[in-house]
Amino acid sequence: MACLNEKNLTWFNGYVTRADRERLHKHCGAVVWFTGLSASGKSTIAHMTEKLLWERECSTYVLDGDNVRHGLCSDLGFSPEDRSENIRRIAEMVKLFVDAGIIVLTAFISPYKKNREKVRSLIPDGRFIEVYVKCPVETCARRDQKGIYERARAGKIKDFTGISAPYEPPDNPELVINSDQETAIQASKRILAYLEQVGIIKSPQVLQPRNKDLS
Amino acid sequence: MACLNEKNLTWFNGYVTRADRERLHKHCGAVVWFTGLSASGKSTIAHMTEKLLWERECSTYVLDGDNVRHGLCSDLGFSPEDRSENIRRIAEMVKLFVDAGIIVLTAFISPYKKNREKVRSLIPDGRFIEVYVKCPVETCARRDQKGIYERARAGKIKDFTGISAPYEPPDNPELVINSDQETAIQASKRILAYLEQVGIIKSPQVLQPRNKDLS
Repeated sequence: MACLNEKNLTWFNGYVTRADRERLHKHCGAVVWFTGLSASGKSTIAHMTEKLLWERECSTYVLDGDNVRHGLCSDLGFSPEDRSENIRRIAEMVKLFVDAGIIVLTAFISPYKKNREKVRSLIPDGRFIEVYVKCPVETCARRDQKGIYERARAGKIKDFTGISAPYEPPDNPELVINSDQETAIQASKRILAYLEQVGIIKSPQVLQPRNKDLS
Repeated sequence: MACLNEKNLTWFNGYVTRADRERLHKHCGAVVWFTGLSASGKSTIAHMTEKLLWERECSTYVLDGDNVRHGLCSDLGFSPEDRSENIRRIAEMVKLFVDAGIIVLTAFISPYKKNREKVRSLIPDGRFIEVYVKCPVETCARRDQKGIYERARAGKIKDFTGISAPYEPPDNPELVINSDQETAIQASKRILAYLEQVGIIKSPQVLQPRNKDLS
């Protein structure tokens, strides 16, 4: 006796495609995947970038450790296995957001190279933009207002990235932000310039109003 | 020694809100949650409705058993526990899509009332539209081209809703579609009329082009 399994599942070819949704949004679906230590500035830069994209009329969304850890992954902890499952679920969700024609910005420590490469492999070519938010652990610890680094150093938090758990920096990220040397707004502007350069968003000059043909 | 837990997580107040994204999209974020037996027509009506919404310039996405079972929930089976976890994860993802200002259409059997009520409780008031796709099991079995009903009846598939697993119809769904009596396009048009009536989408007459103020 078999369970209802993969053989019983088939892809339904929808009537509206990603290309259709992208035509409506006037930009491509993509993910800007921020990676870096806790308090390196990932969330701040992600939200700032979203702000600039929204001002350019882009359909965006920020996923971060906080809103995902409280919901989709509320059953997971911080062991290496749970971190991998955490990133796996996020990756599958991000894939659907990208397919929906959204520019998703994710702010997860995502310390393991193999997990990030797994995400990249799920996303269509050129739509995964890895942004390494580089910052010395000392600076991160100084910035941290929640006292997490201090508690981690005191041994009160286990599996804390950069202190008691590893962080593997990317080898070839699309962008590196030195967050101890540039401001969030400078970083965000560089990210927008990159997205324009690779054609994910259009330059404001060439943009026509979104619903020109309707009215 | 404590793991990094809920106390270390705080909500980051983003710069762009759901209301901002909704202003851009010119409609509300919401979920149209289809429920009903396998082969009752959920996916067909969901995709047809998406098509009509897209023609009205809405930002939409269809989540169904197929694209989610292959990805986010590929580790889950069809036992009552796994079905609950499946719907829990979908609900958390839907919550984020709605927050992104998207109209999500979901086509899952979602047989248990308590699971559907859980989803409703996660979504802002008025943004969860439950659509019961009602169809006699005999009609579903006749429509089914994959032979799943036949195999389920032969005892080759266990936990099959309507045959060897229960289906609990909703008590007060926002809409009921009798899919043995109306076509997908008729059903979809009724859904759009409902979305307009409750203010999730606007009537085409009052809509201004989406990016009127830009250019």
